[in-house]
Order: sequence, then C-alpha cells, then structure tokens
Amino acid sequence: MKKVTIIGVGLIGGSLAIALREKGLAETIVGVEVSPQNAQKALQLGLIDKIEQLPDAILESELVVITTPVDTTPLLAIKTLNLLKDNNQTGTVVMDMGSTKAELCSVIEHHPLRGRFVASHPMWGTEHSGPQSAVSGAFEGRVAVICDRELSDDNALELVEELYAHLSMKMLYMSAEEQDLHTAYVSHISHITSFALALTVLEKEREEDHILDLAGGGFESTVRLAKSSAKMWVPIFLENKYNVLDVLRENIHQLQIIRRLIERDDAEGLIAAIEKANKIGKILNKS
Amino acid sequence: MKKVTIIGVGLIGGSLAIALREKGLAETIVGVEVSPQNAQKALQLGLIDKIEQLPDAILESELVVITTPVDTTPLLAIKTLNLLKDNNQTGTVVMDMGSTKAELCSVIEHHPLRGRFVASHPMWGTEHSGPQSAVSGAFEGRVAVICDRELSDDNALELVEELYAHLSMKMLYMSAEEQDLHTAYVSHISHITSFALALTVLEKEREEDHILDLAGGGFESTVRLAKSSAKMWVPIFLENKYNVLDVLRENIHQLQIIRRLIERDDAEGLIAAIEKANKIGKILNKS
Repeated sequence: MKKVTIIGVGLIGGSLAIALREKGLAETIVGVEVSPQNAQKALQLGLIDKIEQLPDAILESELVVITTPVDTTPLLAIKTLNLLKDNNQTGTVVMDMGSTKAELCSVIEHHPLRGRFVASHPMWGTEHSGPQSAVSGAFEGRVAVICDRELSDDNALELVEELYAHLSMKMLYMSAEEQDLHTAYVSHISHITSFALALTVLEKEREEDHILDLAGGGFESTVRLAKSSAKMWVPIFLENKYNVLDVLRENIHQLQIIRRLIERDDAEGLIAAIEKANKIGKILNKS
Repeated sequence: MKKVTIIGVGLIGGSLAIALREKGLAETIVGVEVSPQNAQKALQLGLIDKIEQLPDAILESELVVITTPVDTTPLLAIKTLNLLKDNNQTGTVVMDMGSTKAELCSVIEHHPLRGRFVASHPMWGTEHSGPQSAVSGAFEGRVAVICDRELSDDNALELVEELYAHLSMKMLYMSAEEQDLHTAYVSHISHITSFALALTVLEKEREEDHILDLAGGGFESTVRLAKSSAKMWVPIFLENKYNVLDVLRENIHQLQIIRRLIERDDAEGLIAAIEKANKIGKILNKS
C-alpha cells in the first residue's frame, strides 16, 4: 500500500506499524495522535513517517486503522467514514483493532460507507502501553477475530484478511455480540482478577519488601496484567459491562465455593475443584 | 557432602538433586519415594543414585531433605529425627523445603534433636510436578526463607545457609508464623485466584475451541498456575487455612468493589483502583 494511516500510535498501532514496515506492506505510514509526547516518540522511534491531523491524514490513504482506547473508537470511526464520504474517497478501507465491538458496530450501522469498515480484534497485547512499548513480531501466530464480515464490502474484507495473513494470524469470524461475550470470558476477566489480586496483596501486605522478596515466579505471572493501563481497560470494562459483570459474578462465585471448601476442611472437594481447573492446561496445550 | 538423602523426589526434590550434582555438592544422592513410578523415573533420569527405604536411607547421610507435600512433612520430620536419635546420629542435618511452616515447627518443637532441623522455604516452583519436571537452574536468584533460626544448631543452620548460597539464593529470616502469613498473601492466594479463573472460564465458556482461540498471552499467564497439582496445593491451603481464608476474603472483597464500580459506570473509581493496582509493577520491577 502506498499510504496507511494509523489513528492512535501506542502499543497496538506502533506494533502494527513495525509489522507493516518489516513485511514491506506500506510505503508511507502516517500517524494521528492526540498526545504530543506519544506523537514525538513514535516519530523518533521511526514507527511512523509523519504525524498529520485527521482531515489530511486520511487523504489518499488506502487503509485507515483505528487503534485508540475503545471509548473513542466509535466516534473516530464515524468521523473517518464521514470524511471519506465527503471526499468521495470510496476505495479506502477503515478498520479497528479494539477489544469490544458491539457499541462500535451499532454506531456505524447505518453509515452509507459501512461496507468500507472492517471490525476486527487481533488477540494480542501486553501489559505495557505507548509507542515505546511497540514490538516486532506482535500478533504472530495469534487469532484475529473479524466481526460481522457480511457487513463489509468483499474487497475491504479481503484487504484486512490479507493484512492479517501477512502478520501470520489465523482468522476467526463471529458477530460483534459474540466477540464481546467470548472476549469478556477469556480476556477481560483475566485483567480484572489480576487487578484484584494486586489490590489484595497491596492491602494485606503493607511492607513492600515482603512482596518483592516473597514473590515467586507464580505471583509475578498471575499479577502481570495488573500493570495494564487504566486508560485502555476502563473503557473496555464499561463498554462490555454486561458480559464483564456476568463473568465477574461467576468468578466471585467460584472463589466463594473454594472459600467454603477450605472453611470446611473439605480436602476431597478441593481436590475435585483443582482437578477440574487443571483441565484448562489440557485445553491450552492443544495450541 | 558424601551422602545426601532426599525424601520425595518430585519437582522440588528432583531440581535440588540436579543442583547438588551440578555444583558438586553431593557424592551420593539417595532418594526415598512412596510412588514406585516416580522412584523409577528419578533413577532413569539420573536425579538420584539409588532408592532406599527410610530407615536405611538416612544412615551415614550428612543431610536429609524432606520435599514432600506439606501434609506429610511434620510426621516425616518427627520420624527422621527419631531415627537419628535412635542411631545416635547427631551430626546429621534435616531440612524441609515446604510452603507452610507453623504446623511443622509446632510438631517438632520438643524433639530432643530439634536443633538438627532447619525449617526453610525456597521461593521457587512451577505449575508442573513429578521428577520429570525437575529442572536445572531452579532456585537461582530467588529468596530462601529460613524459619525460627534460633531453634536450629549453629552448624546445622550454617550447612543449610551454605547450600542455599551455592544455589545463588538470598536468605531471609522470619518466624514460622510470619512465613505462613506472608506466603499466604503473596504465593498461596495467586494459586487460588488462578484456579478460580480457570473454573470461571470453563463454566462460562463451554466451547473449548473458543478458549483456545481467544486466549491471548494475558489469559495464559494469569491461568498458568491453575495447572498446579491438587496433591501439592490442597494440603497447603488446609495447613495454612486461617491465613489463606483471610487473604481470600480480601480478594473477594476487592472483586466486589470492582464489580460495584462497573455496575455504577464509575469510570473515575475504576481508574483510581487500576492505578493503585499498577503500583505492584513498580514494586516488582525493583528486583
């Protein structure tokens, strides 16, 4: 592609930029970035060729990728599609890479250029954020969820599918509602439990040195996601509120069951619960 | 040392055996193992030189290390000290490497050879178990907690301190009660939240393929400990019941706070909670 525009040059947008360059998929990468510091960093790191403001940034762009926190995505999607419509720029494809989809897809539902939009969620991320956290080899071997594909034009869908194939991703198709449900169950809840674990330990263990000294490898991996940014995750939890609350209630329920088993010294019940939990290992080892 | 005896040749005992060999610390390593399969595997893998039964295994041994599940440790400790007493074998040092200490230290409290025992907990482990999971380089750079050091003879303590120093571990001293409290706060709760997360996802996400496909790196690291064995962890939870329940109640409380913040769409409250949780990253990065 001659010109690709990335709106939001942070962890995801930056890592995408690196991949686009490494795979030779974009001649020019233009960034749109509200934070002057992040814009400066992204330029310094060579992630993008230049920073432009939104009206100019999409001109002559073949692909516009929105990689901002999910609370800002719907409006940016509409604004981008409006500009394309105003410019009669109907060949450009617009995509997002966010973690929630129902709100976004409902906001753009009736836009005359809805077909130019491809709603997608590559299942990759780290606990870090900002352009300085962008890495090479992101996305590789992971799943890219594409939502409501029947609402995208064939050639728009193909462009995005080819892009993800170049990133060595495996495509998975579902509706926006299904994606939000499954992502709450598998991704969003992990972040909540990790935040809660960090808060628990900070509450109980007032001496920081004890945390540092006694944290074995197990604690560090379980609490890793608790380093994730509020700016990214609060909008996800609120946009996907009902699914997140549903799985969070189940998680509290499971903890209460374990608590009662321990209270009653029910070794057999605990063994049964843990052996059931062990099943997750077998499922994940299939990959 | 000419002869070291390891009672329980699994993940911990096996990894210790590898380290003893690599550092040239033991001429002969004898294993005591209730599971014939594990005994056979440990011999095949060359972790130990021979398997012996308990009365013989400790004869002429300079160091006896108990690395069995914590519910079996107190009785094995007493039996081992009794045998040493019967043999008038008062030069031998006995140590354990388990995750809970109050029950153990209370059981051996009045033994005439209490001074030959060193209660310790090296803060290392993986989600795997059995001799086939033993690895080289285990323990390195981690903390070894030594409990109630004033109850051990000076030369017994020195032997164990030297051993851990050879394994590149940093020593930390506390009472058995303090160790159980802090370990519940930092290690035991991580395992409970991971088991509960696995059970939550298995409950909500009935289609295993969705779990496999949608599990980003975040989910895998958060749920990794859920692969841990019931045989090892149920005794830990029950031996350390009151500390574990205390921190588990706090964890449920923190999840309930997050749940209420999401229910009320309280973005500011969520941001404050997550930014507080983020502190854990700064603490862990000190290491």
